[in-house]
Amino acid sequence: MQIDFWFEFASTYSYPAAMRVEESAAARGVQVSWRAFLLGPIFHAQGWTDSPFNLYPSKGRYMWRDLERICAAQGIALTRPGAFPRNGLLAARVCARFADAPWLPEFVRRVYAANFALDRDIATPEVVADCLAAIGQDAAAILAAAQSQETKALLRAQSDEAVRLGLFGAPTFMVGGEMFWGNDRLDEALAWAAQRVGSSC
Amino acid sequence: MQIDFWFEFASTYSYPAAMRVEESAAARGVQVSWRAFLLGPIFHAQGWTDSPFNLYPSKGRYMWRDLERICAAQGIALTRPGAFPRNGLLAARVCARFADAPWLPEFVRRVYAANFALDRDIATPEVVADCLAAIGQDAAAILAAAQSQETKALLRAQSDEAVRLGLFGAPTFMVGGEMFWGNDRLDEALAWAAQRVGSSC
Repeated sequence: MQIDFWFEFASTYSYPAAMRVEESAAARGVQVSWRAFLLGPIFHAQGWTDSPFNLYPSKGRYMWRDLERICAAQGIALTRPGAFPRNGLLAARVCARFADAPWLPEFVRRVYAANFALDRDIATPEVVADCLAAIGQDAAAILAAAQSQETKALLRAQSDEAVRLGLFGAPTFMVGGEMFWGNDRLDEALAWAAQRVGSSC
Repeated sequence: MQIDFWFEFASTYSYPAAMRVEESAAARGVQVSWRAFLLGPIFHAQGWTDSPFNLYPSKGRYMWRDLERICAAQGIALTRPGAFPRNGLLAARVCARFADAPWLPEFVRRVYAANFALDRDIATPEVVADCLAAIGQDAAAILAAAQSQETKALLRAQSDEAVRLGLFGAPTFMVGGEMFWGNDRLDEALAWAAQRVGSSC
């Protein structure tokens, strides 16, 4: 059985989800499909020109504190980024182009850690290249492929699919047609997937 | 130790929270303080003239499905109300005036069930009176007290306190100064409260 993990690099709650989804899924015998998408166009379409956590300060204050508790419980570092949200377009293009590469999950974790643990600007090619080089990949070749017209179209198509599926936030987990929104729905999504494995035996 | 349970009768996710908060808290040795408030003015202040679940249809569709799964897992009935959101002002006034009455928790559960399981219009004095009568209370006397100027001021003060605390949604659990937002944070809030009990011994 498979879980589709829809994530956006600027999304705060996608960070703890990205750091644990592979391990949690493996423990249930579930495969993860890594689906990067862009929330910006979805937010724009509903009239938001910034993150709702910036537009609604009470909600933003709460989110940062909540994320602090979650990261502490999960044992992962958190440094509130000096800029929020950061533009994850280039990193998302890498994901769209190399979705099935064996190094992709570790790349995704490195980019999230760069943004939310190391406070580095993931919008820049330098930081994305560092994340690739750190896991032994050819950063120059991958970044060139990520910026091709073909890859740009690929990520646009993936973001269009997110809209068709009704995604409105990140992270979102899809199991077949069933949607689970938010880091705190990961376990429920995996249980749903595992149950389907069981019932198909 | 005490947990402050801030709820709004129109709030969908407050329904499963209200149905289990007392039992879950008792299992941890935690007291519940029932704090009704109105979300309408808070939403208005951030430019929303309707529930975000109506304003943002994708989010609304997801919420109803998510609530269906939650209620099924919890073993409580759910009938999608014919009107949403319903006005819980009168019921909230009863709560503000009789916050410490021993029958209050059961009254709250009856009102939630009326709205979300029985699809009755909780905005009407008839339905609120039925909820009171069903638990052996003098509905006429209580509704008269609930509509006094003093009670109206009491609920306004309580809603003002919600704003001061930075509440932006319901249900919200406060443990000392620590905020936990959402039905799915109840267990974490109770663990936080129980830990404080332990550490003060």
